[in-house]
Parts: sequence; structure tokens; C-alpha cells
Amino acid sequence: MSDGHSRAAGEGRAAVVWFTGLSGAGKSTLAEAVAAKLRGLGRRFELLDGDVVRTHLSKGLSFSREDRDINVARIAFVAHLLARNGITVLVAAISPFRVTRDDARALIGDFVEVHVAPPLDECIKRDVKGLYKRAIAGEIAQFTGISDPYEPPLAAEVTVDTSAVSVDEGARAVLSALRERGYLDDAATADAAAATDETQAARITGSEHGHE
Amino acid sequence: MSDGHSRAAGEGRAAVVWFTGLSGAGKSTLAEAVAAKLRGLGRRFELLDGDVVRTHLSKGLSFSREDRDINVARIAFVAHLLARNGITVLVAAISPFRVTRDDARALIGDFVEVHVAPPLDECIKRDVKGLYKRAIAGEIAQFTGISDPYEPPLAAEVTVDTSAVSVDEGARAVLSALRERGYLDDAATADAAAATDETQAARITGSEHGHE
Repeated sequence: MSDGHSRAAGEGRAAVVWFTGLSGAGKSTLAEAVAAKLRGLGRRFELLDGDVVRTHLSKGLSFSREDRDINVARIAFVAHLLARNGITVLVAAISPFRVTRDDARALIGDFVEVHVAPPLDECIKRDVKGLYKRAIAGEIAQFTGISDPYEPPLAAEVTVDTSAVSVDEGARAVLSALRERGYLDDAATADAAAATDETQAARITGSEHGHE
Repeated sequence: MSDGHSRAAGEGRAAVVWFTGLSGAGKSTLAEAVAAKLRGLGRRFELLDGDVVRTHLSKGLSFSREDRDINVARIAFVAHLLARNGITVLVAAISPFRVTRDDARALIGDFVEVHVAPPLDECIKRDVKGLYKRAIAGEIAQFTGISDPYEPPLAAEVTVDTSAVSVDEGARAVLSALRERGYLDDAATADAAAATDETQAARITGSEHGHE
């Protein structure tokens, strides 16, 4: 595997923003809110949603630990290819195992981990896909948080409790983390940010809260 | 899956250049020669080699028709993500089935198919990996060209008989096809081309011929 190492003038580094958390935590919703802000800033990005990626890259894999790890490793491989070409990548995937996420971090380097962390009770209460009810009834085996472990990050760059803050607040926290680490600081982005920050904020405030 | 639709000023469209052909035809060698030229032009690219991708995305898949198709579909999915973000992608994969390649073409749109097409006898004579000998001896099942079909493209954008032309001639033909279709025609590339075309040619002429 080889790649073009040249980088267009003024183009910044790109990060993989990795949203991890329980089913129903709000990973996709938060990632989409961040995506809207990046779009407003004129940044190139891809949003890789765990469920969609599973269809395209990992059909037939189970939810055993081994197969979950393979699925996450494939997402990391693809995210890495994109990020090293200057494309910001937003990954929304339960990715329950710490060592597997840490492997992704080691591969990718430019890695910003976002723990989407409402209390489990809140996820069960929302139960947007009706999965918790079935898992608690024993109808779904190996369901993260109920019959399978979730290992929270020990040092995530950002933690967002979506039961306590709005989607927009959460997205702003993620953008701040990217900015602090130099992932948004090329000139074009700074100009765009100055121009669009207020309108972006207005646009996103109205979006739904905490569903994925 | 969503993506950032903005495109940096002056940045051209990106194509997936899909090298198909028998084992030992010279796909990887030709792709690497094209990669060297793209690097010289300052273009961003990724080279996805079938064998490497198989390790990262398709471990455990067999060489049955179904599993080969899944592998090719995964390569196409990843190539599409890159190309729609302005990254030229070079895919080197046997990809023996016409309908599967056509599915990749339909998904990707900006698709330039390169049939790497020395005669089978030439591939058997080269036998760079020693696989033909084993396949002919019946030691490898489902070996493309020996015990499994290869369906040549009916209308490839480029056909390169690597037994008749040099690697550099082949790579130039691919670059011409890209240029004719508008994939290399932004201003930056044109400038770089003017500056580096001669040195590139000199650099590549010395490379090995026809191995992958």
C-alpha cells in the first residue's frame, strides 16, 4: 500500500474523531452535528457509521468479541486511509473494547476519542431502536451494556454526557478539541469559522436530541 | 454515510483506476509506475493492492466466486470513499468477474478500467510467485486462468499488453487516459506536469518490467 505524500498548500492535518459509547448513547446524532459544523467550515470529511460500515465491510460477522474486533479494525483501516489524505473522519461505532480502540489510535495517530456517555439507565429509557427491551428480555445475545461488556475510555479527549448537555454543546466541545490540537487551524478554515460560526450555531440548535 | 461536499478551489475530480488481469500480468508493477508519475505531479493518491486489502478487509474469505465478489465489492466501497474526496485511487486486483467490476464502475462513476493483458502463456512463463506451477499441478484450487475463469473487460478504457510494451509506456497510456477524461487538468497539475514530466520519464525508465 503506498500513498501520495504531497499535501496541498495551506491544507491542515486531518483527524479521526472516534465516537464510542453504548447503543442509544447518541453517537450518530453527535457525529452528525459535528459533520454539519465541519460542512459549514468547508472541511472535507466522511462520516463512517458503524451500522453502515458493517453492511459494506463486515457482512456475516457476528457480535462475538473476535468479530467485533475485526469490524472495528476494518473501520480503523479505512479511516486511516482517508485521514492520511487530509479527510477528517467521523466514526460512530459502539466499539466496546478498550484495547481495540487503542489499536485504532496507534494505527491512526491523529485520533480524537469522544466518549458519548449518558448513563446506561438513560439509554435504556430512550431505547430508540427497541433493542434494550429485547436484550433485557434475553432475546438478543451479546448486547453491549446488558449481556456484553462496555469498557469506557480511560482518557478520552472529549466526554459528552448527552443526558446533561445539548447536542450543540456536545458538538462544540468536539470542535474545540479539534481546534486545540491544530486540526482546524489552516487559514481557509479560520476565515470560514469567523464567517459561519454564528449561523451554524443557529442552524444546529434546533436539531433533535440524543437519538441515533 | 454522509460526506463533506465542498471541494477545494482548483481541485479536480478524482478517478478510480482499476487494474484488472491475471496473476502475474503486471498489475501492481504498472500501478506503481502510475503512482510514481502521480507523485511527480503532486497528486494525492492511494494504491490499493488486492493482496494487501484482502489482509485488512477480507481475512478469512475464500477464493470462491461469492467470496471474491465480496472482496472486490469492499475494495470498491473504500475506493469510492477516497475518490469522492478528491483522492485518486489505483486498485490492483485480479477481479476476474466482469459483472463485479461493472458493479464497481456503477458505484464509483469516475472509473477508468485498465486491462493488464499479456497472454496467459507469458504469465505462466514469468510465474513470479511460483503459483502457476502449483496451480497446473493441481495444488491450488480455483486459480484464475487455470482452474477458474477470467472474464476480460469488453470495453476497458486502457489495455496494456505488458509482454509488448514497457512499464513506462503502459503508465503513460494510463496517464493519457486520465488526462483525456479531465482527471488531471487542474492548474496545479498542469504546472507540475510541465516541470516534472521529463525527470519523471527518466526516473521510471529504469524500473523493472512486468513483475508484481
